[in-house]
Amino acid sequence: MSSTNQLDKKSQAWSALFSEPMSELVKRYTASVFFDKRLWAADIEGSLAHADMLAAQAIISPQDLADIQRGMAQIKAEIEAGTFEWKLELEDVHLNIEARLTQLVGDAGKRLHTGRSRNDQVATDVRLWLRGEIDQIALLLDDMQRALVTIAAQNTETVMPGFTHMQVAQPVSFAHHLLAYVEMFARDAERLADLRRRVNRLPLGSAALAGTSYPLDRERVARTLGFDAVSQNSLDAVSDRDFAIEFTSFSTLVMIHVSRLAEEIVIWMSQNFGFINLSDRYCTGSSIMPQKRNPDVAELARGKSGRVVGHLMGLITLMKGQPLAYNKDNQEDKEPLFDTVDTVKDTLRIMAEMIGGEVAADGTRTGGLTVKAEAMERAALKGYATATDLADYLVKKGLPFRDAHEVVAHAVKEALGLGVDLSELPLATLQGFDARIEADVAEVLTLRGSLNARNVLGGTAPAQAQAQIARHQARLG
Amino acid sequence: MSSTNQLDKKSQAWSALFSEPMSELVKRYTASVFFDKRLWAADIEGSLAHADMLAAQAIISPQDLADIQRGMAQIKAEIEAGTFEWKLELEDVHLNIEARLTQLVGDAGKRLHTGRSRNDQVATDVRLWLRGEIDQIALLLDDMQRALVTIAAQNTETVMPGFTHMQVAQPVSFAHHLLAYVEMFARDAERLADLRRRVNRLPLGSAALAGTSYPLDRERVARTLGFDAVSQNSLDAVSDRDFAIEFTSFSTLVMIHVSRLAEEIVIWMSQNFGFINLSDRYCTGSSIMPQKRNPDVAELARGKSGRVVGHLMGLITLMKGQPLAYNKDNQEDKEPLFDTVDTVKDTLRIMAEMIGGEVAADGTRTGGLTVKAEAMERAALKGYATATDLADYLVKKGLPFRDAHEVVAHAVKEALGLGVDLSELPLATLQGFDARIEADVAEVLTLRGSLNARNVLGGTAPAQAQAQIARHQARLG
Amino acid sequence: MSSTNQLDKKSQAWSALFSEPMSELVKRYTASVFFDKRLWAADIEGSLAHADMLAAQAIISPQDLADIQRGMAQIKAEIEAGTFEWKLELEDVHLNIEARLTQLVGDAGKRLHTGRSRNDQVATDVRLWLRGEIDQIALLLDDMQRALVTIAAQNTETVMPGFTHMQVAQPVSFAHHLLAYVEMFARDAERLADLRRRVNRLPLGSAALAGTSYPLDRERVARTLGFDAVSQNSLDAVSDRDFAIEFTSFSTLVMIHVSRLAEEIVIWMSQNFGFINLSDRYCTGSSIMPQKRNPDVAELARGKSGRVVGHLMGLITLMKGQPLAYNKDNQEDKEPLFDTVDTVKDTLRIMAEMIGGEVAADGTRTGGLTVKAEAMERAALKGYATATDLADYLVKKGLPFRDAHEVVAHAVKEALGLGVDLSELPLATLQGFDARIEADVAEVLTLRGSLNARNVLGGTAPAQAQAQIARHQARLG
Amino acid sequence: MSSTNQLDKKSQAWSALFSEPMSELVKRYTASVFFDKRLWAADIEGSLAHADMLAAQAIISPQDLADIQRGMAQIKAEIEAGTFEWKLELEDVHLNIEARLTQLVGDAGKRLHTGRSRNDQVATDVRLWLRGEIDQIALLLDDMQRALVTIAAQNTETVMPGFTHMQVAQPVSFAHHLLAYVEMFARDAERLADLRRRVNRLPLGSAALAGTSYPLDRERVARTLGFDAVSQNSLDAVSDRDFAIEFTSFSTLVMIHVSRLAEEIVIWMSQNFGFINLSDRYCTGSSIMPQKRNPDVAELARGKSGRVVGHLMGLITLMKGQPLAYNKDNQEDKEPLFDTVDTVKDTLRIMAEMIGGEVAADGTRTGGLTVKAEAMERAALKGYATATDLADYLVKKGLPFRDAHEVVAHAVKEALGLGVDLSELPLATLQGFDARIEADVAEVLTLRGSLNARNVLGGTAPAQAQAQIARHQARLG
Repeated sequence: MSSTNQLDKKSQAWSALFSEPMSELVKRYTASVFFDKRLWAADIEGSLAHADMLAAQAIISPQDLADIQRGMAQIKAEIEAGTFEWKLELEDVHLNIEARLTQLVGDAGKRLHTGRSRNDQVATDVRLWLRGEIDQIALLLDDMQRALVTIAAQNTETVMPGFTHMQVAQPVSFAHHLLAYVEMFARDAERLADLRRRVNRLPLGSAALAGTSYPLDRERVARTLGFDAVSQNSLDAVSDRDFAIEFTSFSTLVMIHVSRLAEEIVIWMSQNFGFINLSDRYCTGSSIMPQKRNPDVAELARGKSGRVVGHLMGLITLMKGQPLAYNKDNQEDKEPLFDTVDTVKDTLRIMAEMIGGEVAADGTRTGGLTVKAEAMERAALKGYATATDLADYLVKKGLPFRDAHEVVAHAVKEALGLGVDLSELPLATLQGFDARIEADVAEVLTLRGSLNARNVLGGTAPAQAQAQIARHQARLG
Repeated sequence: MSSTNQLDKKSQAWSALFSEPMSELVKRYTASVFFDKRLWAADIEGSLAHADMLAAQAIISPQDLADIQRGMAQIKAEIEAGTFEWKLELEDVHLNIEARLTQLVGDAGKRLHTGRSRNDQVATDVRLWLRGEIDQIALLLDDMQRALVTIAAQNTETVMPGFTHMQVAQPVSFAHHLLAYVEMFARDAERLADLRRRVNRLPLGSAALAGTSYPLDRERVARTLGFDAVSQNSLDAVSDRDFAIEFTSFSTLVMIHVSRLAEEIVIWMSQNFGFINLSDRYCTGSSIMPQKRNPDVAELARGKSGRVVGHLMGLITLMKGQPLAYNKDNQEDKEPLFDTVDTVKDTLRIMAEMIGGEVAADGTRTGGLTVKAEAMERAALKGYATATDLADYLVKKGLPFRDAHEVVAHAVKEALGLGVDLSELPLATLQGFDARIEADVAEVLTLRGSLNARNVLGGTAPAQAQAQIARHQARLG
Repeated sequence: MSSTNQLDKKSQAWSALFSEPMSELVKRYTASVFFDKRLWAADIEGSLAHADMLAAQAIISPQDLADIQRGMAQIKAEIEAGTFEWKLELEDVHLNIEARLTQLVGDAGKRLHTGRSRNDQVATDVRLWLRGEIDQIALLLDDMQRALVTIAAQNTETVMPGFTHMQVAQPVSFAHHLLAYVEMFARDAERLADLRRRVNRLPLGSAALAGTSYPLDRERVARTLGFDAVSQNSLDAVSDRDFAIEFTSFSTLVMIHVSRLAEEIVIWMSQNFGFINLSDRYCTGSSIMPQKRNPDVAELARGKSGRVVGHLMGLITLMKGQPLAYNKDNQEDKEPLFDTVDTVKDTLRIMAEMIGGEVAADGTRTGGLTVKAEAMERAALKGYATATDLADYLVKKGLPFRDAHEVVAHAVKEALGLGVDLSELPLATLQGFDARIEADVAEVLTLRGSLNARNVLGGTAPAQAQAQIARHQARLG
Repeated sequence: MSSTNQLDKKSQAWSALFSEPMSELVKRYTASVFFDKRLWAADIEGSLAHADMLAAQAIISPQDLADIQRGMAQIKAEIEAGTFEWKLELEDVHLNIEARLTQLVGDAGKRLHTGRSRNDQVATDVRLWLRGEIDQIALLLDDMQRALVTIAAQNTETVMPGFTHMQVAQPVSFAHHLLAYVEMFARDAERLADLRRRVNRLPLGSAALAGTSYPLDRERVARTLGFDAVSQNSLDAVSDRDFAIEFTSFSTLVMIHVSRLAEEIVIWMSQNFGFINLSDRYCTGSSIMPQKRNPDVAELARGKSGRVVGHLMGLITLMKGQPLAYNKDNQEDKEPLFDTVDTVKDTLRIMAEMIGGEVAADGTRTGGLTVKAEAMERAALKGYATATDLADYLVKKGLPFRDAHEVVAHAVKEALGLGVDLSELPLATLQGFDARIEADVAEVLTLRGSLNARNVLGGTAPAQAQAQIARHQARLG
């Protein structure tokens, strides 16, 4: 039996059909091995499951299977040891591994590709790999939420100005503010669980585009590899990149949430706010200004949202208007997907650590953000944050809300003119605006009175925040 | 009690705090009533549920509730009759309705806004409205799938060339090709169901940003309005636009699928393919070229994918880096969301009809696409579509796949030189490439032989396509 | 001669070739008249120039030309008077006007379309219209710069903290800060002038795609309409939408600049900064919080950057992968282009006015932003803004910069510990860090000393800012 | 002289102000050296120009300058030899080079950073580097146009169907079709020249954000480095990334043009068209289908448009809402910019070669695309491409265009029914539609008659195409 290896001839010409080798420029332009080699473990795992099934279906012999398993074990060892020689001529991770396999085990290696094509092989590898990354990201989303909940739990009574339009609106607790981000990341985790189901479907068995004439047992392969289901249409299976777009959409939302939190951290760190401090280990200095301590990590995280948004847009553009089935354009799905995964993982890890501190083996945390409660409280006293409380007070005394709103606007105007807070206006002055105002208004006009009053589900009252924290702690374990 | 109406004074100044009215330019720039009035029904429904709860909690009187219900009934009638006067000065749908309510029922109208803010009101209205649209889109996705399944059911034996790289690859049935799109739209429907859960959460009760001091019963409002759950953090609830981004991401995938199908329809309609014909009612002519019949609908649908992608990118840009809580930027969420809903609905409806025909009351269909089976089959004979079958044949005779691949490349080269198909090569010639080839190869080299052979789950064999069609019919009802 | 009008029959069928009328759904889906009617003036102007040339070339008779001119004059009057009846069945502005013309003047109207197609007609109309809008936007960019320069001219000595990483870095003047935005808008104006040349090329004469067999004088039409040049390839001319993408890219940069300035205005208005105030006429209140004065205009302008970014991405997606020549997809270029123009114009106008005030006929300005110089100066004292000056001082005394940087870091650490500014450290203390420090360091450590010292071209010293202001005033007139 | 080196201590802590070193995670997250080291040549060139000026202004000594020049020469040699040790701890290319310089030449190295900051240094380096790339891309755009013009020059008489809506519209020459793309790439070249002016402005001298107190001669540095102008505002200069966005917008249009051409190449290569063939060296085979020859390069080029669009979107998102001046977000500008440059260069090079062939030293070309003229002509005969010619013929006989259009529609319907071309209808039949039709109609109805007739500027007549080719050849040299 011939021992020549068709794959090795690719440096000459693709097949007998081709009269000249690929141009060097084309080789470099079309090769993917330098970025897709990160799929190697998935590629081997997928090939072993395919070979196992081929043997079970008697499409290859037990000896072929044993040879393939032996060869793959050696290849795995070589890659892990860094001795595997990746070749540009062999285009991608798949052909590199298959060529080496044939070199190692001969004809059994040539039989591995029976009943499959690179089209369904690539699709399978990417899904296997991405599923693993999704499971890691799920853990990182949990870590992120835990970091926020940890700081929140220490700050249910820490009053800061709640802003709308960046104008002081009403007092909120710092806990309540951080818990808003827990909601966002919790929704991200929901979305991730939803999309995982759509990632975890097996395309293998679709071959190039039309299925195959071999009696494959696709369900067996799915079971071996832990897929939830097998794909139902071969044309769709080899050309579908929805899962990459959906994952990148998810990632975009994660990064949008990160960008919002990062924006706030940067503002809070600015001297005019001074609400928080970050550990030195998360700050950088300046090459020219000796006094600088910059929140680089938060800024960079905010900036990296652009990167992921860009990848989403790139993937969408890629797929727009593509006819069935596989087109080479699809090779361009990998780099954006890989970089999205890396960016989301690194960003979640570093933001969680910067906020909640590094977590030691025993669960203790060091180095998280420092809350400057007095600065927060001082700021909350600046913008008539309890004006709504005064209006609500008047409503409870019988004034329709819209009229109460107008009464308070007059009172604020008066206080503004005097340069004092509402709580500093004499009772008589307040009564000049509406006679219903009585001495009990004093408590209403304090920050803490306002905070405690918002004791509705989802509101900022400490009791509410504590309930939410308890819920999250139970949920996150 | 005063009958002046603070809202009416907005043409003068916002409140006592403001010394001059809003500039006309600003009024026009910031007003949203001309696009957000489409939320009117949701706004009234939401207000009635809020009022009902306020009364149940004894925050307003039964008489107030009755007044509000009476006023709202009249406003609904006025809007439906087209007699409601929308005012730019009143900014948005919410203030327009509230101002009219107060005009109609006096102080009860002024009490409606107790314990809520426009921030949570807007968020509630948009979610209520979007939920309704989602339910309509779910039906349209079903219609789209039904249209595809209907044509597929008539074409399980219609052979066309399956393409990869737009090069003839292997024979597939037209049914199998259409069923690939059914898979895509089915995944869209899954995603839509997933995201509906995240849309269907009630923000009302979050007030401006911090919750409220009134003893609201948020669960009651959620039940009244059919929400699955209430939001758990007021800061998040008033500023969250994740659901708009997620819905637009979903819509982008729908439109990407449409753009792919539309691209194929345009190519199939081109004279060099001539695979299908469209009814005249879906075509247009040219102002200059008398012979033209253009597939405008498909082209426009493909083009409209850009529109929805643009909206997605717009919404993402909008939210990037926004600090908590509500900022006016968020008002810009509505037009892209509205236009996305309109585009997706119109496009699904018209594409479903153009493909599957108009569905009469009795379920009969007229005017769907015409399949030109001979042209498809002729095309399938052009590009050595059964070459893989020959390779598989050799594998079954004992040749390793990689060697078989090379043998067939030589045979194709020979056939190309002679300008004939593989099936037209004499058996002796074929045997010259590999002696294992015998007379039984003839069936293998036919289109139908190839099609029938791919009888693996998800493959193109008629039996597989029929099974998929049955599954979809059962699923879609 | 027949007086039937082919265009009128479009409600029945496109031409004799069509056996049934367009479906109502399709009519609505493909019609553009409801948005493209804004091109009416360009359409008439273009048609008159075409007719004039047809007559000059003796392709139509002088009587035909006179009839067309008479008919167009009436149509113009009807549109301006609001009595023109726009018909959905006639699809777009072009067919609406042509059909009415034929109704008014008979066969001459039917001859107008000689030697042209809707493809080159649409392309011409859009370019004519956009050129007019470009010229208006150029003026608005000048207004924007004038507004900034006006406020800058009053604030060359107003010290504020210059930020990097939102951390106090070095003192700058408020004038210098505003002048940075003048640079941005000046670059936008450069780009606009560049792209105008590419917009201002005449496609008319390209007909449907291949040119025409009539002896047209394209240069004459270009002269009549003020185009700089005629297009050189008919296939390109009818399908090119580069100019729309380039214009929207320009607009995106304008809006990115606006978003940055708006972000700063929002932050400066926040109580913790309090650097500026805006006139009431540019602020809004809250429906629930009586004390609120929100910088809605700045927020909305920031938000509207998303809208324009979305349109850019939509247009790019539209054109990706389109084969030559005209495809119906291209109709989707108009709405994003129109909305981009509207958004940029409105936003520039309102931002210029909010910053620089409304400009009366005599050039006086009222209502621009109020600068709170003391708050700015107070903030500049917070973050060791003159630390670099101390390092530079040491360099001038002979220390290598990197060593000086380190010395100052020690000094800042000391001052931080004491809670004082560098300028408040006793000379002896400073000398403890480096003996080269002498009494003349005092001036170096003041805000004004620092400001004045940066007297390099483009630096923040008042002399530099004044020079820039003079340059801009000369340039802007 | 001190031999301690502040930069070397960065592995411990940023400066005396920092109590702990940067976390390892942060180092990796914020480091840019692994991608920005490609700026090394620009960094050295910029530093040398800065040092030269510092010496000319007597800010550093001649000896310092000589030391710096000597050190830099050695560093250049080390980098070129691959022996330079890049250190992650030193963050970026700038600090790596500066630290090595100080190691090599001592205090002179520490003095290099006098009067500059990394902020203006980075901005300068990127602009210098990008200017060089722009000049290379300009040459590649010329090569691309030359390749197209070369093939066009051979095909002014090659008739193919001109398409609109992918439907056969009118005959055009293949030359005319290719020249449409020359127009697109020529516009790209115009845009590139325009934006080069905005890239080629010197930010150096802006220091961190506010300018510097050293008496720099910025004009001298600009002259040394070949910059057209110096920046006029330091805050803008260090934070401006407009040039990166503008360059990426330009690149997006280049790639959109490539994607359109690639789409056509893929379609033309499809067996149902068969208009062209590509050399084997630009094609790939299939791992499963032995007959495949796929136009991978064209598909990948089309796909890579998504990549560049993504980078544009990423950069826009990055800059949206950023306050002045430099923020760390800006570091994220580099990877997208670098990858955009690489993608555009590789893609232009490979597409030009695939179309026009490899150009030998003597200007001869081998391996460009093969035109299959008969297939093109056969296709042009399919869709009644000369119907407009018949309408124009009737107009010249006195019929108004709209009536002629309708007459021809009837004739086409008749021909369709008979399954023949218009030119195959007997004269008597044609006369039945309009009596004005005479024997001279025969020439009008031929493909070549139609082609020759479109002899208007920019039209498809061979004379026009030849004139355009001559113009382009003169222009491109």
